[in-house]
Amino acid sequence: MLGHSSAGTTTIVIFGASGDLTHRKLIPALYNLYRRKRLPPDLNIVGFARRPWSHEHFRELLSEGVKNSEKDGYDEEVWQQFAERIWYSRGDLATRADYETLHQFLYDLERIHANRLYYLATAPNYYEPVVDNLEALGFADETDGWRRVVIEKPFGYDLNSALALNRAVHEAFRENQVYRIDHYLGKETVQNVLFFRFANAIFEPIWNRNYVDHVQITVSEDLDVGSRAGYYDQAGVMRDMFQNHLLQLLCLVAMEPPASFNADALRNEKVKVLSAVRPIMITDTVRAQYEGYLDTPGVSPNSQTPTYGALRLFIDNWRWQDVPFYVRSGKSLARKTSEIIVQFRRPPTQYFNLPRNRKLTPNMLSLCIQPDEGIHLSFETKMPTSAHDIQTVDMEFHYRDSFKDMILPDAYERLLLDALLGDAALFTREDEIELSWRLIDYVLRGWETPQSPPLVSYRPGAEGPVEADSLLKTDGREWRLGCGGHS
Amino acid sequence: MLGHSSAGTTTIVIFGASGDLTHRKLIPALYNLYRRKRLPPDLNIVGFARRPWSHEHFRELLSEGVKNSEKDGYDEEVWQQFAERIWYSRGDLATRADYETLHQFLYDLERIHANRLYYLATAPNYYEPVVDNLEALGFADETDGWRRVVIEKPFGYDLNSALALNRAVHEAFRENQVYRIDHYLGKETVQNVLFFRFANAIFEPIWNRNYVDHVQITVSEDLDVGSRAGYYDQAGVMRDMFQNHLLQLLCLVAMEPPASFNADALRNEKVKVLSAVRPIMITDTVRAQYEGYLDTPGVSPNSQTPTYGALRLFIDNWRWQDVPFYVRSGKSLARKTSEIIVQFRRPPTQYFNLPRNRKLTPNMLSLCIQPDEGIHLSFETKMPTSAHDIQTVDMEFHYRDSFKDMILPDAYERLLLDALLGDAALFTREDEIELSWRLIDYVLRGWETPQSPPLVSYRPGAEGPVEADSLLKTDGREWRLGCGGHS
Repeated sequence: MLGHSSAGTTTIVIFGASGDLTHRKLIPALYNLYRRKRLPPDLNIVGFARRPWSHEHFRELLSEGVKNSEKDGYDEEVWQQFAERIWYSRGDLATRADYETLHQFLYDLERIHANRLYYLATAPNYYEPVVDNLEALGFADETDGWRRVVIEKPFGYDLNSALALNRAVHEAFRENQVYRIDHYLGKETVQNVLFFRFANAIFEPIWNRNYVDHVQITVSEDLDVGSRAGYYDQAGVMRDMFQNHLLQLLCLVAMEPPASFNADALRNEKVKVLSAVRPIMITDTVRAQYEGYLDTPGVSPNSQTPTYGALRLFIDNWRWQDVPFYVRSGKSLARKTSEIIVQFRRPPTQYFNLPRNRKLTPNMLSLCIQPDEGIHLSFETKMPTSAHDIQTVDMEFHYRDSFKDMILPDAYERLLLDALLGDAALFTREDEIELSWRLIDYVLRGWETPQSPPLVSYRPGAEGPVEADSLLKTDGREWRLGCGGHS
Repeated sequence: MLGHSSAGTTTIVIFGASGDLTHRKLIPALYNLYRRKRLPPDLNIVGFARRPWSHEHFRELLSEGVKNSEKDGYDEEVWQQFAERIWYSRGDLATRADYETLHQFLYDLERIHANRLYYLATAPNYYEPVVDNLEALGFADETDGWRRVVIEKPFGYDLNSALALNRAVHEAFRENQVYRIDHYLGKETVQNVLFFRFANAIFEPIWNRNYVDHVQITVSEDLDVGSRAGYYDQAGVMRDMFQNHLLQLLCLVAMEPPASFNADALRNEKVKVLSAVRPIMITDTVRAQYEGYLDTPGVSPNSQTPTYGALRLFIDNWRWQDVPFYVRSGKSLARKTSEIIVQFRRPPTQYFNLPRNRKLTPNMLSLCIQPDEGIHLSFETKMPTSAHDIQTVDMEFHYRDSFKDMILPDAYERLLLDALLGDAALFTREDEIELSWRLIDYVLRGWETPQSPPLVSYRPGAEGPVEADSLLKTDGREWRLGCGGHS
């Protein structure tokens, strides 16, 4: 087993195992890793939740999840082998005695030496109680094998709660035992941002304020809040998308080349970016709510929660000083797309004899995260049959063309495997979490001041509120879509 | 008529009008320009040749050429209108009296004021006699309209003959009346090399010795010499391809940004490149002949004429010092392709944890001239499902995708129109011709010395002789094909 050098068995304990995440994401991801023989040879999975289920019943429920998510990949025989490694230990997340039961169950299963990955797949308000109980029972002690804890997002609700949660986690675990998940970082195309930048020699020389006019990051969703309204109305777009996904993308596109790709080298560079982000002026923000949001069951009738946000921000370092980064995200928009656009400066244009008022279009590099994963580079070309007319065309690379028979693996596969291997590069470190909350808090607090731009509205299915266009228009720029995204 | 501002009629006089070039290229090109209403409103075309043809017979022969070359574009009605402007004047290229007949014919056709484009579509040995006669009859005098002369390639056989021809031409015409054609420069994709470089801001910063490892220029043909053996055996690959096409491509890829795209600004920059080419060491050359060449009718039985050549050359200026340019061309090779490859340097690779002996592949930009016109950029991407494996993929742009319904116009359309408009940017200037012959002569003379590498042979359908591979292998490099060219 490549990379799994440590001897002995390994156990994954999933807290909150009766929830959606377990049967929709975690078990299908583990099943796929098992099928591709990427898991440690002697792995057990133990689900911990309150429902009075048997091992068999638990396995049966999970098999449905795998069947649903793996249409082509489900193989009854492989599943049966895999299912023999799945166990259920009934327990309440807040009840100490149930952890003792779990303790005994694990002891019977593992005998003395085993590594353990604790996966907190619970609602966020259970993170602290679970960690407290793990601490009380000595579950973090590494005498009999390594102990790691994976904590799902959201990690905190604001800076203070994130600080408190970090404190609680560190009562039990050292930082290098902690794996804060942002499944966005597990996506192939997100990781590829780094490969694209640093495995190619031609982009790095122009990846700076001398050549880049500005950067745009768009993560837009076409769906509305749907059944998540209860959670969402508390969170809003800044907590739900900006604090994690968008700031992570910002870090990847803006960071310096790390000394290596190991977890700390990588995260040191991300932290440097976050530290260099200039506090965001409240007039550089747009907040909006789609029409009809207030009618959604679960939403407070006079909710001021934004479902759309846009920011203009600056990174005050040698590479990026004065280059605006425009960042936007929202729900119920015209299309579902995640993309990073690097727009370069315009070349000198006089000598092309262009018609009056016609300028060259600046080159635009689009890193397309989803749905059509790939990379596009727009450039100017001569219009055939004309001596001087110019047309903008695209050089394109699509993952689906080059990796035809390959289904891009779900982010959780990569992240679970990394956690098992002890590679925390794609997980968020304590200081990263705190710095990103600091930035978001600053905006959220600004929105409560009289200087704040008002909460505006937009029509469902629109590209966003007009105020977001104005944010760029005052700079002589406009939002662009570079990945051919259609609704 | 855009650009055709000068009043009065225009006459194109084609010398050697009974030859292939006229019915295969010139008349179809002029017909197309007429059809697209790009010609001056009052244009006449006069063919001059020895055959005793009538106007009607000449027109009929030409209509066949148009039908053959313009499968979809032929329109009987348009052709009939166009054909009314075509005339025939019988004459021998070396007989003064026949030029007097032509003179009278033109006078009757034009009456006083008309512009004239003289097109020398004759065998090269007639260039001087034709020009002498034009001079003797005052055909170059611009009192009654402009007078320009288009001279087909080859322009000279070596430096001395080119110098002599330039002297003879200048007896009659000033340099700015002379249009030396290299139809290669009329190709859309050749012109686009300049647009690509200078209408986009992102390539120019890395287009130099700091970022470019080396450049390759390949113009390969899959056909053998065929019926051109008589001419070819006298010329060989250096005169047939290098002196014109390959050195022109070299200039376009290596030149500094010109101050404007006007003819002299552009040609000044090309001349600077040619002046900066270091005299080519004879050990940096490869010459080869395909097996079976000697059996071709028309080829001398112990001919030493190379049908393949490869050079390593250097441009001694600030931009390119020490960057090798590898240039190759030949007949009877595996595929027909014309491409320029710019290979960039390898990025630092240590931190990708690549398998032993596996290095990152350097980025390669391919400017594809033909047959599949477009631009490819190879880059490294992460292999999905693997944490560190890297795969080289292509970002691609194909003309045929972006300009779907557009047939790339034949080079002659552009060049004829430019000559009519007085734009000499795509024609070769006196000093360009002389400098390129100087470089080629130096190699040809070197091949007659004892230090010369021997004439080697290659199998028809091969990629070239192994000696050409060795030329790069000693530098730790290899020939690459970037345009997906298949045989």
